[in-house]
Amino acid sequence: MSTYTHKVQYYETDRMGITHHSNYIRWMEEARTDFLDKIGFNYAEMEAKGLSSPVIGVKCDYKASTTFDDIVEIKAYVLSCTSAKFVVGYDMKKDDKVVFTGESTHCFLDTNGKIIRLQKELPNFYDILCKNQQENAI
Amino acid sequence: MSTYTHKVQYYETDRMGITHHSNYIRWMEEARTDFLDKIGFNYAEMEAKGLSSPVIGVKCDYKASTTFDDIVEIKAYVLSCTSAKFVVGYDMKKDDKVVFTGESTHCFLDTNGKIIRLQKELPNFYDILCKNQQENAI
Amino acid sequence: MSTYTHKVQYYETDRMGITHHSNYIRWMEEARTDFLDKIGFNYAEMEAKGLSSPVIGVKCDYKASTTFDDIVEIKAYVLSCTSAKFVVGYDMKKDDKVVFTGESTHCFLDTNGKIIRLQKELPNFYDILCKNQQENAI
Amino acid sequence: MSTYTHKVQYYETDRMGITHHSNYIRWMEEARTDFLDKIGFNYAEMEAKGLSSPVIGVKCDYKASTTFDDIVEIKAYVLSCTSAKFVVGYDMKKDDKVVFTGESTHCFLDTNGKIIRLQKELPNFYDILCKNQQENAI
Repeated sequence: MSTYTHKVQYYETDRMGITHHSNYIRWMEEARTDFLDKIGFNYAEMEAKGLSSPVIGVKCDYKASTTFDDIVEIKAYVLSCTSAKFVVGYDMKKDDKVVFTGESTHCFLDTNGKIIRLQKELPNFYDILCKNQQENAI
Repeated sequence: MSTYTHKVQYYETDRMGITHHSNYIRWMEEARTDFLDKIGFNYAEMEAKGLSSPVIGVKCDYKASTTFDDIVEIKAYVLSCTSAKFVVGYDMKKDDKVVFTGESTHCFLDTNGKIIRLQKELPNFYDILCKNQQENAI
Repeated sequence: MSTYTHKVQYYETDRMGITHHSNYIRWMEEARTDFLDKIGFNYAEMEAKGLSSPVIGVKCDYKASTTFDDIVEIKAYVLSCTSAKFVVGYDMKKDDKVVFTGESTHCFLDTNGKIIRLQKELPNFYDILCKNQQENAI
Repeated sequence: MSTYTHKVQYYETDRMGITHHSNYIRWMEEARTDFLDKIGFNYAEMEAKGLSSPVIGVKCDYKASTTFDDIVEIKAYVLSCTSAKFVVGYDMKKDDKVVFTGESTHCFLDTNGKIIRLQKELPNFYDILCKNQQENAI
């Protein structure tokens, strides 16, 4: 699990006066990138090696609104990990209050766009993902 | 059900060469706004009356990628409707191939931020939503 | 000159209640892509041939605000064209009132990232750009 | 002058493999907000008092590209300040190389949407802006 902090920007708000809901998916990506980096897998370096990791699915639960100038603390962690795909969970808090929970599902593709068997082809990555697995971060 | 067309813009792509996954949530909003407009409920007018409709939850399944210059056909429809909230479903196709399915859950708030009982307080809207209810659009 | 229409989306507004100013640059790109397409140069096809066209500079003058559900009519035209670069001008109106004027400067790069001499290496494109040159569109 | 750091996110890149040019305008806003905060004028607090500060104009010069995972150092400073409006300048560097210079022009409006005379109505703010005035930050 890693903790990442995002300060809500003016351009992320909408005319309801709150953060537009589409931005949380972007913050999930920010926190996931930061998490992978912290466990030793910089995504830019993985891409440079020819790997890519498309998003297969996303789930978002909006618990409370945030807005400009708010500090959002995001915990990212591995919810589950199989050989073909892994699920990252996210819990976001503002002033210790949960404002959002979500998850995203990913696979890894090689240079030919073929799905990588994580356990076999990226065993170190798979092991570290499994070790970081937990049910939630709240 | 309504059909809405979105042409993928260059600024919606990312360096994987495809549409960034966060944009589908925005297209869901475009199609939903268009759908509400077509069934007689222009969201700008609803806001002018003091109503707001925050997004409570979102689910996205990415089936195939799209990219710049693609024409995406989006069908939006009511998946379910209760007195407190309603769920909108979305099916997106490119050249008759399903590229995305998703859903979003919404409630309506009055000027005081109190949840509106749709059946009681917005009966016309509730009736029309119920009539547009269907299981999927594929 | 071409005319392109953009309907302002909810996600393009900010908590000032108006369209966030960063979106006009994106609409400039939408209108420019549409303009190039209409004069016979589809940008996706140009990219497929190995060309790319980075933005060198942008100027924006915000004359009046727009907001959700507004229909913005965008005229794009060639302000100037030399062998190394070309400038596209934009005039945006809402209900016949000018809300924005802007311009963007571009060059073309080949597959090696080298600047293309338009007159010599893309003579058809250069000729058509020159023919579409005008001082303003208001 | 203040220095603000932005790490380029994946969602800010486009399929040219680089940061989409529209994002620099957003980073200008991030750096400006941070700058105003550091000189004692938190924009959220100014809004809470009924003030708003629309963007009147923007100029961007793209000197070199950036991409995902790059650290961009942004210097924001006051280019000029009159009673009606002020211009903020921005210099962005990556690894000590200038990648972008830009400026944005702003006024302040009161609760009635009337332009505020900075020198008379916000004298402290005006004085501090003038003190931070400089020709460039490179």
